[in-house]
Amino acid sequence: MNFGDKELFELASYLESKREQINTYLDQCLQDVPGSSRLVAAMRYSLMAGGKRLRPLLCLAGAEAVGGKPENFISTACALEMIHTYSLIHDDLPAMDNDDLRRGKPACHIAFDEATATLAGDALLTMAFQTLSSIEHIDKHYALKWLSVLNRISRAAGYQGMIEGQMRDIDAESTPLNRDALEKLHQLKTGALIEASVYCGGFLGGGSREQLDRLQTYAGCIGLAFQVKDDVLNVEGDPAILGKEVGTDEIRKKSTYPSIIGLEPSKSFARQLVNRAIQALESFNHRSDPLRAIAEYIIERQR
Amino acid sequence: MNFGDKELFELASYLESKREQINTYLDQCLQDVPGSSRLVAAMRYSLMAGGKRLRPLLCLAGAEAVGGKPENFISTACALEMIHTYSLIHDDLPAMDNDDLRRGKPACHIAFDEATATLAGDALLTMAFQTLSSIEHIDKHYALKWLSVLNRISRAAGYQGMIEGQMRDIDAESTPLNRDALEKLHQLKTGALIEASVYCGGFLGGGSREQLDRLQTYAGCIGLAFQVKDDVLNVEGDPAILGKEVGTDEIRKKSTYPSIIGLEPSKSFARQLVNRAIQALESFNHRSDPLRAIAEYIIERQR
Repeated sequence: MNFGDKELFELASYLESKREQINTYLDQCLQDVPGSSRLVAAMRYSLMAGGKRLRPLLCLAGAEAVGGKPENFISTACALEMIHTYSLIHDDLPAMDNDDLRRGKPACHIAFDEATATLAGDALLTMAFQTLSSIEHIDKHYALKWLSVLNRISRAAGYQGMIEGQMRDIDAESTPLNRDALEKLHQLKTGALIEASVYCGGFLGGGSREQLDRLQTYAGCIGLAFQVKDDVLNVEGDPAILGKEVGTDEIRKKSTYPSIIGLEPSKSFARQLVNRAIQALESFNHRSDPLRAIAEYIIERQR
Repeated sequence: MNFGDKELFELASYLESKREQINTYLDQCLQDVPGSSRLVAAMRYSLMAGGKRLRPLLCLAGAEAVGGKPENFISTACALEMIHTYSLIHDDLPAMDNDDLRRGKPACHIAFDEATATLAGDALLTMAFQTLSSIEHIDKHYALKWLSVLNRISRAAGYQGMIEGQMRDIDAESTPLNRDALEKLHQLKTGALIEASVYCGGFLGGGSREQLDRLQTYAGCIGLAFQVKDDVLNVEGDPAILGKEVGTDEIRKKSTYPSIIGLEPSKSFARQLVNRAIQALESFNHRSDPLRAIAEYIIERQR
């Protein structure tokens, strides 16, 4: 796609072509496995279940925004999706959120069984780090840069990031949260990995310190907007489009933006956040259009 | 410890001093966490439950054997223990092996709960890769070497290594295995990470191609010997020393070396493997004494 001509930029086709590249790469990652391991079948089942691919898209768009070549960072982008997918598989387990449906299909532990789902999650997480450290894809002079990307992603995904967020999310089913605690929960559970996705794209793409700071602001805003929109969809979304049940937050008495500040204020808050995200990109040129488009997509999406 | 004077080498004190260094490092890894997260408490509970620390010991001894300085690789060694600990937490879960006791204490999901144990396992796995990629500990000129160590460990721990081994182990409860299939299962489940531990120590320590090949042979033999001994201990071990129940393999009708080739032949097989491991180190000097000592320990251990 030619981003030189802004008029030609079309979100839908950009997202589609990038998603295709991401899906092709992910598909290949699990292709060279001999035998018919149930483990690999379960990994593939969840990985190829047709997610939005938001994190890899953000990574590629982050690289593009600072003038980098997204195609050089497809492996990093896809590793982020492996981490995201593992977290969904484990979150859906009976001992966790106990969700039977994911992306319109039976959750991994329903399609297979609990043990297989647990292991498939473990294996996708491990495969992410295997992918991030595959030195054959790496320009040898930048090994330190890749190590630091891997470190950044592991921190975002770990006990001071995503996993702590999920822990708090589980606890929140029994204890109501105030707005600050809810925001912190979301920042950990979803925000940290979304921020790492944009940041690592920008960092690998050669962004300046100032550009990276702006990308962080952008990512912080859309990460939270994404979660507010998720809460909104859980109230008024269409289960057929969403691919999962709605109204579950209320049944579980979970604190959400709609439950704390109301439905309409939640929608305006999400809109404000997206505006703030786009504002943070002011000094970037047309190459940041994909990031702008993704920000809009985040609150317009119906799934 | 001065390895220059072979006569002075004492296994017990070597293992103890190294174990102490490993425990100190692991303890520090979870020290800088603010608040009182249940997640971190569960991670610490399992990580500091007093394991044998076999994998980190093998990594340090592997470095030592080729003339490297083990103290430079303590973070790598400890990352291996984090991976091992996560695998134990997940293996003990009700949907997996459903073991209530581990290292003489309630398993993580008993001491906490299933959701917390699942997340603590996830978090330890992620922390291993965070530790392996901590660039402040890394000599910048060797970043590529560290990346390749990380890659090697992720492959050993992943869907073509340890996790596939656990998948087969679960399946083996319903389907009897022949000796070849059992050996392959063990090679995946335990062998792969043990081999990676020795290899990475030797590789980081600056071992030659030939030395690394010999270390691999050594590791392959002791990895299998370890598992054969485990099977033997499940038949005739003392639960009080072992810290877990015995006789469970028979109850679960699991294929084991004793069940396939008999108890006494299993013991001689383990001894043969250890002899073969020690033979592989013939051309190494006294600096490989710790590896020799660990090999002996593996079949003499009572827990």
